[in-house]
Amino acid sequence: MSTTTAKSTVTAKLEKREGCIQAALNILGDKWSPLLLGQLIASPKTFCELETALGGISPRTLSARLEKMADHDIIAKQLYCKHPPRYRYELTNKGRELQSILKAMGDWGDKYHNA
Amino acid sequence: MSTTTAKSTVTAKLEKREGCIQAALNILGDKWSPLLLGQLIASPKTFCELETALGGISPRTLSARLEKMADHDIIAKQLYCKHPPRYRYELTNKGRELQSILKAMGDWGDKYHNA
Repeated sequence: MSTTTAKSTVTAKLEKREGCIQAALNILGDKWSPLLLGQLIASPKTFCELETALGGISPRTLSARLEKMADHDIIAKQLYCKHPPRYRYELTNKGRELQSILKAMGDWGDKYHNA
Repeated sequence: MSTTTAKSTVTAKLEKREGCIQAALNILGDKWSPLLLGQLIASPKTFCELETALGGISPRTLSARLEKMADHDIIAKQLYCKHPPRYRYELTNKGRELQSILKAMGDWGDKYHNA
């Protein structure tokens, strides 16, 4: 395969993937979502546990992020207490597989930003 | 290693990586940057070539993204014409290694969004 062909294949592939990349960024591209996912990768958690773990997040923001992630089938709610109703949040398979993206971002940042 | 220890190790590791992940999102977390990087992964390009390839981007936005990426050592400018001065943009090693993140995002989106 010539260099030109190889390059245009790469370009075409990347263009096709544009929507896929934006789908991932739609979930990950804000301040709190990667941290929230990090917490849920470690273990399922209640709203209160997440609020404590993500020091500084407002209940309204946490609620909005959880709702968005549930809408996108990234997390699922488990009822753990009936009266009063209490929920625990856990990752779906789709959510768990975001871990490879977080890992790639963490590896890159670790190498070049050493934060 | 107990499950609890394993979990807290995961949490600690993820918390340590928070800054690293934010560093990557700082570069990738907007509409145009992944597309711009995709173009430069394929081959170095001039401003005009990038403007054409990224149909719809305004010259001001493209200029701002290129400047930001140069400031973060993601891309480098090569002078290819002295009179008048003309530049071609190419990825640095640091920029090229963002490809693994784009790949992870593309793979995930391809599997779950099939865009």
